Amino acid sequence: MRILGIDPGTAIVGYGLIDTKGSQYKVVDYGCIRTSAEDSIPERLLQIFRRMQQLIDEYQPECLVVEELFFNKNANTAMAVGQARGVIVLSGIDKGLPVFEYTPLQVKQAIVGYGRAEKRQVQEMVKLLLNLEKRPSPDDVADALAIAICHAHSHKLKRLLS
Amino acid sequence: MRILGIDPGTAIVGYGLIDTKGSQYKVVDYGCIRTSAEDSIPERLLQIFRRMQQLIDEYQPECLVVEELFFNKNANTAMAVGQARGVIVLSGIDKGLPVFEYTPLQVKQAIVGYGRAEKRQVQEMVKLLLNLEKRPSPDDVADALAIAICHAHSHKLKRLLS
Repeated sequence: MRILGIDPGTAIVGYGLIDTKGSQYKVVDYGCIRTSAEDSIPERLLQIFRRMQQLIDEYQPECLVVEELFFNKNANTAMAVGQARGVIVLSGIDKGLPVFEYTPLQVKQAIVGYGRAEKRQVQEMVKLLLNLEKRPSPDDVADALAIAICHAHSHKLKRLLS
Repeated sequence: MRILGIDPGTAIVGYGLIDTKGSQYKVVDYGCIRTSAEDSIPERLLQIFRRMQQLIDEYQPECLVVEELFFNKNANTAMAVGQARGVIVLSGIDKGLPVFEYTPLQVKQAIVGYGRAEKRQVQEMVKLLLNLEKRPSPDDVADALAIAICHAHSHKLKRLLS
């Protein structure tokens, strides 16, 4: 199964593509979609959408997995990230891909085994699980790969239980 | 000039299309895009995007005007509305339309003349300005028509000043 994991944002969207076979994971590609603060928000949303479409066309993932974000404080930041997230979710469903969501807590539990794991621990586990030479960076990329692995775990578990 | 005004939301998106010629306004169409809470968020975002694309194809507006929302409190509500708003903004820019934004304060000032106007006053003015037989409802439709008129005012003013 090929999974496209996404860590959403406006300035930087992390993406990570992995192939799973049994309990084996293989990295296909990872990176960032970056947009410039000099462009208008509508233009930046369009750039994100177009790049997402390209990634889906090029790599043909079977599903899209997007981090579910919670905000305790700034509602206007939440609004801004929400716009980018909406466009990302749309890019998947518009291509007929099922879209899955996990909270940061679920991702940490799936990768490290407990929800209070630190960012660095998650990155270290991602490196180990995917046989990478070094910890993926920036954080957005590590998070995108982590959520893809989280979905693979969860999917496998559901199949074992059903 | 044909203007498509939008009041964004997830469950209900108000839209209002007006034609302007000098200081004359004519309603072309208005209504709501409604999505069901029984459907998943990705599906609802897709429904909103598809309907927006249909409206733009059918009526060929020259620009899209979307209410800029501010949230003081619930960041997770802001996140949800942000997702719908992102998809709406994308539907315009993806079709090559310029996208404009106004705050509720700007809309009230443009329509009623002062920023603390009540919803009912805005609706009454929309009814008068567009020669409607009754106040447009629900609120989402009245707000969508109001933001379209607001853009027409602002656009006229900019031309006069330039």
